[in-house]
Amino acid sequence: MTDVSPPGVSLGVVGGGQLGRMMAEHASPLGVDLIILDPSNNAPAASVAKDHIIAPFDSEPGMLELAEASDVLTYEIELADPDILERVSTKTGTPVEPSPDTLRMIQDKLVQNRTLDEASIQIPRFRPADDIDDVEKACAKFGYPVMLKARSGGYDGRGNVPIHSPDEIEEAYEAIAGPAVVEEFIEFVRELSVIGVKGKNDRRCYVPAENIHEDEILRESIVPARISDDIRDIAIETAHEVLDQLVGRGVYGIELFEGRDGTILVNEIAPRPHNSGHWTIEGAVTSQFEQHVRAVLGSPLGSTALRTPIVTANILGDTSADPAGSPRGIEPVLRSSEAHLHWYGKRAVWPLRKMGHISVYHADSQDRDALLEAARTYATSVTFRPSEE
Amino acid sequence: MTDVSPPGVSLGVVGGGQLGRMMAEHASPLGVDLIILDPSNNAPAASVAKDHIIAPFDSEPGMLELAEASDVLTYEIELADPDILERVSTKTGTPVEPSPDTLRMIQDKLVQNRTLDEASIQIPRFRPADDIDDVEKACAKFGYPVMLKARSGGYDGRGNVPIHSPDEIEEAYEAIAGPAVVEEFIEFVRELSVIGVKGKNDRRCYVPAENIHEDEILRESIVPARISDDIRDIAIETAHEVLDQLVGRGVYGIELFEGRDGTILVNEIAPRPHNSGHWTIEGAVTSQFEQHVRAVLGSPLGSTALRTPIVTANILGDTSADPAGSPRGIEPVLRSSEAHLHWYGKRAVWPLRKMGHISVYHADSQDRDALLEAARTYATSVTFRPSEE
Repeated sequence: MTDVSPPGVSLGVVGGGQLGRMMAEHASPLGVDLIILDPSNNAPAASVAKDHIIAPFDSEPGMLELAEASDVLTYEIELADPDILERVSTKTGTPVEPSPDTLRMIQDKLVQNRTLDEASIQIPRFRPADDIDDVEKACAKFGYPVMLKARSGGYDGRGNVPIHSPDEIEEAYEAIAGPAVVEEFIEFVRELSVIGVKGKNDRRCYVPAENIHEDEILRESIVPARISDDIRDIAIETAHEVLDQLVGRGVYGIELFEGRDGTILVNEIAPRPHNSGHWTIEGAVTSQFEQHVRAVLGSPLGSTALRTPIVTANILGDTSADPAGSPRGIEPVLRSSEAHLHWYGKRAVWPLRKMGHISVYHADSQDRDALLEAARTYATSVTFRPSEE
Repeated sequence: MTDVSPPGVSLGVVGGGQLGRMMAEHASPLGVDLIILDPSNNAPAASVAKDHIIAPFDSEPGMLELAEASDVLTYEIELADPDILERVSTKTGTPVEPSPDTLRMIQDKLVQNRTLDEASIQIPRFRPADDIDDVEKACAKFGYPVMLKARSGGYDGRGNVPIHSPDEIEEAYEAIAGPAVVEEFIEFVRELSVIGVKGKNDRRCYVPAENIHEDEILRESIVPARISDDIRDIAIETAHEVLDQLVGRGVYGIELFEGRDGTILVNEIAPRPHNSGHWTIEGAVTSQFEQHVRAVLGSPLGSTALRTPIVTANILGDTSADPAGSPRGIEPVLRSSEAHLHWYGKRAVWPLRKMGHISVYHADSQDRDALLEAARTYATSVTFRPSEE
């Protein structure tokens, strides 16, 4: 590849959150510099990026500046505007990966569902809902409960409202306040995810992770998922079918439900490195972040092989106090020989905000239940509440 | 620790070479930002550092600016001026780790040797040489060959001249051109090194690496070294004795000779992460770079446990053409599932300049001879010669 030649390769990234930060950490060994576009002065990725264009995500002049300074454009948030990405790419000749078309498809939950459905990929049954009447009809069809999902702008459970009975319909519809999709509620055995990557000439998947959510926020990922070999194979096969529908190079996070009858249904797709793939930093031969950089630059993909069973747990904000207190509970993580800290450098704390994550693995033990217990204990022991003193 | 609290911790680093670059990559997951001081606009660490003070290494105003912006000061080159470090530390209250006294001791090969000798640590026999007469006397005492070493400024073999016979004395002395040390020549079986770390309350050592030099430049490090358990234990014990003599927290690279009689002698000490410790990135639970950051900040030390047998090989410049051609031979490294690229982002190439390194490990094979063969092949296949076309 010509990608590491002097004077170096610059990857332009829309968004400068923790995904961008970890992307920069893992781009550097490849000789690749990151330039981020993010409106926040204190964006987590800013301190490890070569340059930081401070502009709103939908700023066309900002995006143009980013494209002009970069060899390839990518994004670490779904909020990136595909039309602007397309225009600046045409204007500057800087390629965008994954394709803005993929971003467009994923940004609209209805289009996403239809694309997968038309490709005969199993997903929950769904109906578009443009008004409250549509919601009522869908509820009648699927039976309760159902999930009402905003067609756009959903993230970390925002824009998703469960409806358990007819008298919850009105409130749910008002909460979404726009075009929506009604989905049947899946009584899953487990939530799984597969990190897939599409490169120039090939594609690869990592082993499935088993994900534990609470309040629709990811808490822990257990790798490999505690599933049968059959389910594992179906999950990976399904991920490959999803990758077929996605245009452009890069890492994708593919969230799945394992149904009670052994079926695998696709829940959501993210066109970027995914929270449930953070385990790859210590647990796989190539991290999802290095993998994304390789893929979007058109370099050969890295090995997705598992190095060790591993569990990651998110460290979530537990206060909205501003300023927050110094985080407590970090020292036991640093003292441990099994735990690895990943701190995102965020200045403000709010409840359930992702402040960092912890990975736990053992040379001697591959007991995933024990790893999960340990990871959960470390992560939930980190607190930000201001001292009472 | 309070070290990862908002608004974040800044580590000031004198020098912005590849060691600083890898330090930044591994400081980021701890929530620690790097600020570097380096005279070069294109310093390898600049693109992953939060800030870059462009100033000569001996610029007192530059160092003062660095100290004022940082919570702790450290250095990744021995060229840092200990007197200036001490003054700016006193003025600003910013601690310097390791201690400037340690740097002073290590910068003067005579003082280094005397310190180790007085502590009854085995080193090659040596004599100070202030003039050519001293060199002649030492040669007569030790017999040929001997090594003539400059007391200060030695690095990567610069400042080291072997003398094989009396008629080489004059030329060697002129090459050194200053105060020197004459050392007996050690007919070693192997060159080894131990990466040691001193923290706030404890200290740790990694397993010894076996190092292969050519033209006094490190080529490959094989881990664990292919030595007996007895030699391993003596090497680690010796490293601990050396750590006793070093004041201040941080990672130290301790180079050793394994003599023919099973003795271990200390060759050189580096008060910083060391080229022969790059294997720790993939091969150990905690990398030497994260370890250094933890140590100098006074955080708990990480585990030094080995994850896998591993071999690293340096990618060296093979041309002084400016501009150099795009590096060739990178693609096979990226295609391989066993090789990991670390590119330093240097703009200029010259013969034997360290441009990057490659780590090779296998999930299935622990055959260090095979790892060495593979690492050497990958590294020596990378070339920078401008295309003939």
